[in-house]
Amino acid sequence: MAADVLISECGPRDGLQIIDQVMATADKLAWIEAMHAAGITEIEVCSFVPAHLMPQMADAAEVVAASARLAGLTVLALVPNLRGAEAAIAAGAHKLTIPVSGSEQHSLANVRRTRAAMVDEVARIVAMRNERAPHVPIEANISVAFGCTIAGPVPEDEVIRLSLALVEAGVDISGLSDTTGMANPAQTRRLFTRLIGEIGERCGAAHMHNTRGLGLANTLAAFEAGVRTFDSSLCGLGGCPHAPGASGNVATEDLAFMFEAMGVRTGIDLERLIAARAIVARALPGVPLYGMLAPAGLPLGFVPASAR
Amino acid sequence: MAADVLISECGPRDGLQIIDQVMATADKLAWIEAMHAAGITEIEVCSFVPAHLMPQMADAAEVVAASARLAGLTVLALVPNLRGAEAAIAAGAHKLTIPVSGSEQHSLANVRRTRAAMVDEVARIVAMRNERAPHVPIEANISVAFGCTIAGPVPEDEVIRLSLALVEAGVDISGLSDTTGMANPAQTRRLFTRLIGEIGERCGAAHMHNTRGLGLANTLAAFEAGVRTFDSSLCGLGGCPHAPGASGNVATEDLAFMFEAMGVRTGIDLERLIAARAIVARALPGVPLYGMLAPAGLPLGFVPASAR
Repeated sequence: MAADVLISECGPRDGLQIIDQVMATADKLAWIEAMHAAGITEIEVCSFVPAHLMPQMADAAEVVAASARLAGLTVLALVPNLRGAEAAIAAGAHKLTIPVSGSEQHSLANVRRTRAAMVDEVARIVAMRNERAPHVPIEANISVAFGCTIAGPVPEDEVIRLSLALVEAGVDISGLSDTTGMANPAQTRRLFTRLIGEIGERCGAAHMHNTRGLGLANTLAAFEAGVRTFDSSLCGLGGCPHAPGASGNVATEDLAFMFEAMGVRTGIDLERLIAARAIVARALPGVPLYGMLAPAGLPLGFVPASAR
Repeated sequence: MAADVLISECGPRDGLQIIDQVMATADKLAWIEAMHAAGITEIEVCSFVPAHLMPQMADAAEVVAASARLAGLTVLALVPNLRGAEAAIAAGAHKLTIPVSGSEQHSLANVRRTRAAMVDEVARIVAMRNERAPHVPIEANISVAFGCTIAGPVPEDEVIRLSLALVEAGVDISGLSDTTGMANPAQTRRLFTRLIGEIGERCGAAHMHNTRGLGLANTLAAFEAGVRTFDSSLCGLGGCPHAPGASGNVATEDLAFMFEAMGVRTGIDLERLIAARAIVARALPGVPLYGMLAPAGLPLGFVPASAR
């Protein structure tokens, strides 16, 4: 199906990494297959991090290899460093995404590196990619770009400067992540408008969380600013287990519904996407699932943009 | 506090009318007082309908009289017909709101009147008001303006024609309600832009539900179209008890947070508003409460527009 926007599903990575339960590889693959069958064309299937730090991702290479067999699917892997990038490329990932913190404090806390040291690491990843897998695009998304739980507000000038440094270091695209759900629509529009003004088509995904309920409003603002790639997770997985009710990523089904209702084609079959929630519910008993479309159902007489 | 938008709290009416439990009058008043203390300047406190049809609203006159003692508060009452309007004015309501269905089927099912007959009833209410209480403004909000659970899609031309007929019948303001949570941002922007083009400052509230998660995105679109009054309910009360997870009105606390974060002043103290949720939780045990801001809390370093 033709699409006006790219919805990049990040549930198998962003959704699972904060849940204590380890989802079985077979369940992950059933979930990925169901989303692919619903029309999702890019899935962030895993993170290449040491298994002792994140046992949920111990099967990363296996998940990448199996996902790569699904026709037309871009298999995206998160890599925090050169070692992870080497493993992801060896496993056959089609695209890499590297998180780079927007605040110095978050960078030190998260990867024990300054932002500048992380830009250097990104340059090393790019050099390795150029040598071993020049066809694999690299995205660097700036975490906590809209606010940080350690530093508080993050200066917009610093975010833009960091993005320019990442492009200078050779990444193909650079997006912005509201990792902590602190963004608002005015800020989202302002920051993405500046970013697109600076790096144009290299502007990557708007990765908005729904922690305070503004996820879709922020997504709308990003779309209006010109963003055409959006990260989200089925069932809104990615919430913080220590803050009950504080959900994580924008729910893919609600996001796709918003666009399809607005006349913006996603290429996604909403009914099949909703049906895929059952796999998550079965595989993660007791984990709260978000997303408002599924319980309410599609509106009477609804015609998605993709079917108009 | 100065405000750029009017947030009209509709929880005590829209939130309570669909809940089987009858909230005690004292609890309603404690809730209304807490919201007033948090800076809310307009509250739809009740509906004047026969007590045998809606026992939740049997204390309407008492609630209006007590609320009218709160300094600076506009006490808004919903009235479905002339009899209700007479009772509301006799009780001392400061402002009336009349729901008029956007679809013929919904109008017949809801008030057993055609839309044309309802416009005639509105004219009778206006005539009575002109005689007995000329200082009381009348709002007529079009229900199911963005889609109907009986008729499906509602033609936009019919919505605009109905709004013009209501203004012709003498109402002071006319807004649009997404009663069933079927709106999308493109439609919301289009319809409010047309409405403001036709009736200008008589354009009333955007009353958006969050049934499918688009409540705040739709609110943002209405704001961008020029709307400056928004209905919402604390805790997102107003959900359908027969569709678990399908919440109702946009949550006031999330809506006010979005605006304050964007730099749009609401005049509302968010901390006090969040604290008022405890009254609802205590008074309505077992009723699901919505709203994402409260569990997540305000972002670190957050400065509301009203305090800048």
